[in-house]
Amino acid sequence: MVMSPLRVAMIGHGFMGAAHSQGWRVAPHFFDLPARVEMACLVGRSLGSARAAANRWGWHNSSDDWRTVVADPSIDIVDIVTPSDSHAEIAVAALNAGKHVLCEKPLANTVAEAEEMAVAAIQATTISMVGFTYRRVPAIGLAKRLVDQGMVGDIQHVTASYLQDWLIDPEVPLTWRLDKERAGSGALGDLGTHAIDLAQYVTGSFLSAVSGTLQTIVTERPLLGEKVGLSGTTRTERGEVTVDDRALIVGRFDSGALATFEATRFSTGRKNALRLEVSGSRGAVAFDLEAMNTLQVFDATAPNDRQGFTSVIATEPSHPYVSAWWPAGHMLGYEHAFSHQVADFVTAISEGIPISPTFAEGLQVQRTLQAVETSAQSGSVWTTVE
Amino acid sequence: MVMSPLRVAMIGHGFMGAAHSQGWRVAPHFFDLPARVEMACLVGRSLGSARAAANRWGWHNSSDDWRTVVADPSIDIVDIVTPSDSHAEIAVAALNAGKHVLCEKPLANTVAEAEEMAVAAIQATTISMVGFTYRRVPAIGLAKRLVDQGMVGDIQHVTASYLQDWLIDPEVPLTWRLDKERAGSGALGDLGTHAIDLAQYVTGSFLSAVSGTLQTIVTERPLLGEKVGLSGTTRTERGEVTVDDRALIVGRFDSGALATFEATRFSTGRKNALRLEVSGSRGAVAFDLEAMNTLQVFDATAPNDRQGFTSVIATEPSHPYVSAWWPAGHMLGYEHAFSHQVADFVTAISEGIPISPTFAEGLQVQRTLQAVETSAQSGSVWTTVE
Amino acid sequence: MVMSPLRVAMIGHGFMGAAHSQGWRVAPHFFDLPARVEMACLVGRSLGSARAAANRWGWHNSSDDWRTVVADPSIDIVDIVTPSDSHAEIAVAALNAGKHVLCEKPLANTVAEAEEMAVAAIQATTISMVGFTYRRVPAIGLAKRLVDQGMVGDIQHVTASYLQDWLIDPEVPLTWRLDKERAGSGALGDLGTHAIDLAQYVTGSFLSAVSGTLQTIVTERPLLGEKVGLSGTTRTERGEVTVDDRALIVGRFDSGALATFEATRFSTGRKNALRLEVSGSRGAVAFDLEAMNTLQVFDATAPNDRQGFTSVIATEPSHPYVSAWWPAGHMLGYEHAFSHQVADFVTAISEGIPISPTFAEGLQVQRTLQAVETSAQSGSVWTTVE
Amino acid sequence: MVMSPLRVAMIGHGFMGAAHSQGWRVAPHFFDLPARVEMACLVGRSLGSARAAANRWGWHNSSDDWRTVVADPSIDIVDIVTPSDSHAEIAVAALNAGKHVLCEKPLANTVAEAEEMAVAAIQATTISMVGFTYRRVPAIGLAKRLVDQGMVGDIQHVTASYLQDWLIDPEVPLTWRLDKERAGSGALGDLGTHAIDLAQYVTGSFLSAVSGTLQTIVTERPLLGEKVGLSGTTRTERGEVTVDDRALIVGRFDSGALATFEATRFSTGRKNALRLEVSGSRGAVAFDLEAMNTLQVFDATAPNDRQGFTSVIATEPSHPYVSAWWPAGHMLGYEHAFSHQVADFVTAISEGIPISPTFAEGLQVQRTLQAVETSAQSGSVWTTVE
Repeated sequence: MVMSPLRVAMIGHGFMGAAHSQGWRVAPHFFDLPARVEMACLVGRSLGSARAAANRWGWHNSSDDWRTVVADPSIDIVDIVTPSDSHAEIAVAALNAGKHVLCEKPLANTVAEAEEMAVAAIQATTISMVGFTYRRVPAIGLAKRLVDQGMVGDIQHVTASYLQDWLIDPEVPLTWRLDKERAGSGALGDLGTHAIDLAQYVTGSFLSAVSGTLQTIVTERPLLGEKVGLSGTTRTERGEVTVDDRALIVGRFDSGALATFEATRFSTGRKNALRLEVSGSRGAVAFDLEAMNTLQVFDATAPNDRQGFTSVIATEPSHPYVSAWWPAGHMLGYEHAFSHQVADFVTAISEGIPISPTFAEGLQVQRTLQAVETSAQSGSVWTTVE
Repeated sequence: MVMSPLRVAMIGHGFMGAAHSQGWRVAPHFFDLPARVEMACLVGRSLGSARAAANRWGWHNSSDDWRTVVADPSIDIVDIVTPSDSHAEIAVAALNAGKHVLCEKPLANTVAEAEEMAVAAIQATTISMVGFTYRRVPAIGLAKRLVDQGMVGDIQHVTASYLQDWLIDPEVPLTWRLDKERAGSGALGDLGTHAIDLAQYVTGSFLSAVSGTLQTIVTERPLLGEKVGLSGTTRTERGEVTVDDRALIVGRFDSGALATFEATRFSTGRKNALRLEVSGSRGAVAFDLEAMNTLQVFDATAPNDRQGFTSVIATEPSHPYVSAWWPAGHMLGYEHAFSHQVADFVTAISEGIPISPTFAEGLQVQRTLQAVETSAQSGSVWTTVE
Repeated sequence: MVMSPLRVAMIGHGFMGAAHSQGWRVAPHFFDLPARVEMACLVGRSLGSARAAANRWGWHNSSDDWRTVVADPSIDIVDIVTPSDSHAEIAVAALNAGKHVLCEKPLANTVAEAEEMAVAAIQATTISMVGFTYRRVPAIGLAKRLVDQGMVGDIQHVTASYLQDWLIDPEVPLTWRLDKERAGSGALGDLGTHAIDLAQYVTGSFLSAVSGTLQTIVTERPLLGEKVGLSGTTRTERGEVTVDDRALIVGRFDSGALATFEATRFSTGRKNALRLEVSGSRGAVAFDLEAMNTLQVFDATAPNDRQGFTSVIATEPSHPYVSAWWPAGHMLGYEHAFSHQVADFVTAISEGIPISPTFAEGLQVQRTLQAVETSAQSGSVWTTVE
Repeated sequence: MVMSPLRVAMIGHGFMGAAHSQGWRVAPHFFDLPARVEMACLVGRSLGSARAAANRWGWHNSSDDWRTVVADPSIDIVDIVTPSDSHAEIAVAALNAGKHVLCEKPLANTVAEAEEMAVAAIQATTISMVGFTYRRVPAIGLAKRLVDQGMVGDIQHVTASYLQDWLIDPEVPLTWRLDKERAGSGALGDLGTHAIDLAQYVTGSFLSAVSGTLQTIVTERPLLGEKVGLSGTTRTERGEVTVDDRALIVGRFDSGALATFEATRFSTGRKNALRLEVSGSRGAVAFDLEAMNTLQVFDATAPNDRQGFTSVIATEPSHPYVSAWWPAGHMLGYEHAFSHQVADFVTAISEGIPISPTFAEGLQVQRTLQAVETSAQSGSVWTTVE
């Protein structure tokens, strides 16, 4: 048991700030953590909004100066949930200051930034981790376990997609997520990274080459809060969407197996459908985040007249993470994976051993994104992931 | 191989006439029958409608006199698809005339009629069979096979229902199916018989006692084709609905296991949901006719972290009847079970051995219906199936 | 804004203690509550276990003397999560001491106890509530809203069931839940109460009569922790199961509509399937707790060729409680309803108005259970709910 | 009413021969055809096998000489169900002989053959049609109707796949379907053509460019029936698989909308999953042949709190083709679409007007396949469909 608590500072307070806060708050009450955790400080751009968020989410202090907080010797962990263009600067500073760092995905907006982060992580003596949180959904953990046990056999194909539809209305305004400078890319970086990471995680192998297609469907959108006109009426001007609305990728694993990926925020009716299907010589597993407590499992070695996809409700004590929660059959939700992430991260810190996904893994995903963009610009020609 | 064909006469030509005709027409082209079949004569109430139906469905001759046809020595098989109030008279005459008899369900409107039929069937040297056709849906055959193999273990509970919704509109007119004199009962006899028969068939045991509730929801409906008025306008008078709209039954098997049944034509949104779930100490099977090519199978002896309901698509050659049809994964429909019924019936005739469901089984279902009605009239008190 | 916080004492610390604790802990961070909440004291039978639970779940103090805590003037709210045989004594004492009371379901083990509690609640000036928590699952709230808006039309039928399977193994030991003295009844009180409450809540009407059947499938089970023998080996003796394993109920609403209920812990493969389907003249709604973020909605007034059950994923900001949580498409879990319960309860206390479900509603459910038992003992004969 | 019957000759008698025979046999009994149909002659390679198939499937005569049969003046319709390498020769001969021609898909193995056929079809005065039969599944007809009515709005994306798994076992022998000379291509031509045709049919637009990837997973398989060895034992030699096992395609419609396609016989657990999802600005439709009686429909203009995918069971009389069959809720199967195809084809012949899909449409699909192959050989670079 570590005597003094681990003191956490969280930089940023958007949607991810709420989710991470819930993880820090809840995990200690369900998991036997080897260290206490203290939600020490929340950092925002303005003191007012940071203080409001800190009050709402239960952080002791607030600040508008991340540099000071990151340099504060009393802080042990820096949790970065800002837009991705600031990840590199904050993370490198935190690592250099000797902090443990949890950084939201995508790791960075460019390969150069991601490389800088990965190098800093390797050189640091602290623990770092990138927030591909869906790895820690129990049904995904079960998929990984079954693949590792050989239930799928030789993997022959992977299909992954992440489908949302919140941009189908062309009047949805231009947010930072639609600005290449801030977000790096669109559906590719926001959603495609999850699909790529899960495919690599569950199969235990890496994409070596890709063929990509990127498409922007709605090219102009209303600017946020633009108000013009003598009459005081609101006139909405439009700005250019500089990121992709849909990314389509064919990938090749080292093993030669192929994979397809789709990432989009234009799949009408699909709200949060992160799907993964891994097919092999002996079986298959299939997952859909819209039914996140279930893993579909096909066993091609079962008696022929009983074969079919089995809907395994991944809420048994024998499933990853579940024994910490409720009795069998009681569903977990989106945010539980953030508690699992905290539990594993704190354990890794206490034990002083690296934890996956590392920044190096985040960098590899970033290189894959870049290969996709290169391929897309050259007419989808197959491109090696460097 | 029987040299001379089996010559069939079908009495009646409603919805069931179309389904039975398709069975007689199609079965010989997919199954290796031990005898040829000839669709010799279709009998209706009027010569015009009988001839039209015969032409449409491919019967060689037509008639409006079932007695003459049943007595015709050239006829081998009598297939009865009339409303259930005429089953007994026709079937007994046919059996007495030495014909093989296939009779649509329910076997009869009363226990007395059904007893008369069962006795005639036992005394006859010919083959008789009642048309609980759903037994011959491949997924149901698979359920029966798995239960017989012990996959479910000791049966602890059965849930069965047959849900339709075509009567929720109170302007649906009074047809013969809503008239107790013609139909015997309502949802109970029309739909509940299927649910009861399937439950008994798949479990291989009989209900020994029941507690029943019957309800008529819309008590008056427009008379069919009633036209009144000097002005020539149509005035629709209403008549009384004399059958149940919903039947709710709790039943007890000889083994002590309980079962619940619901039969209704008022289950909004459920079009043809004949459902059966059999639960036991080692597993469970579940079926829904609205997804009729699939059987849900739960194996409680599988490794704990892989348990779940398996959606077995019952279209493999290893599944009952399927090898006669298409490659795996090609769906069968409602009418295929009528071909299976014909194939089995013709085979039984050629081999001279009884075939299930016998008239005695039809009688047992009829006795169960009567016990349900007796129970319902006495306030749902438990009533023995005589 | 109430200035001083509401100080809560929770009596009991089993499974429900964990769930309630999560509610008290999390709700203030997502909902704009009109009062602060303080998790003041957890009470258990032994000081050791109470202290351990308090530490784990974040309660400031612990105690082994509920009477002292309930009498403590600094406590505002008493939250009762003990086995149901102690509900009445604690709740009445708390109400008499001027506390607000949240009491887990079932309200009590007998009608007499429940009446005493309901009277005490009416006489008290404080707020009381029984924990039929599933009412506050968003999809159930949506079902209630749609029914209230008339989308279902005249309600013609309700089907409800609560199916689990954790007792199918006859070696599961005798816990307090299988002892009539402690638990009052078995599946009926534990699970059937939820099904009955939801059916009444969503339809807005009450059962006036019932026909019930109760069954105990495994009549003897190993005693917990029984150790005998000089050799120190464990010898497991068996004790009698004194509660029902399965409850089957037909109910009649004041309106004349019928309902069926099944509650069991023997439904092989069903882990936590609380299901409700309400059918009416214009539509239907259907829910299953195993897919708790979804409500199935059938609109019988839609164009005929587009009718079908719509899978509404109840995670939109427009759905009950959801705007407090995550963006659309991010799933909620079992425990979220406990936060909703806390949020509503705290709001009711601050506003000084009663909140549903009241103890009177809990009493009505208890009377329904008693009518079921009376009916079952008399052979399922229809019995009036007093 | 045409007085003399249309006399049909079917060339070939594999799996498709059985399906087409069922269509010719059954359609006249359910649809009011404007002409009688006579199953005149079945042609095979050997007289023995042709006669056996003719007997089994109800063809009056049989032959082993398609040229004579095609030239026979008494034959009106030639139905071609041979492997695709012989389609062109037979179809052109039949068209030149003044026959109406129904030709199974894919239209041909090469663009050159398909062009020859399309030219012959245009020059002929008879009716010709290619057998993309799935267009005539009722749920697909409903999808087409809804898209045409504007329910989906501006189409933004199409996802289509055709997934089977019968080749995952490397011991499945080399059949003609795995030989490029005979089959033209593998999954691409066998399954991908269906997916491409349906996507174009339902959206009413054509692919103008594609990026393709083709993969052969099992490169060698046992030769069929190879027997060697003095000892009389069977030694199985292996031959090269010369077609693709999986085809992955990104396509672009004239409108700019993108589409993805996957065709494979290696998708473990997927038996016959032809899937199509069309997303647009106002809604979406989704289909899966493994649940072929259902169309999933999403209406983005519905009230926000009731939106979701609606499972429309396409068995209502208001759905395409269904009124000819059974009452609502009675499922149709795989083969029903072959009856629909016959009904439409015979009607078109009687009315003397072209019927879709024409040979020109088959040619366009063939050109798309060629563009996919060209793209795949050049590293997936975008390739124009000529």
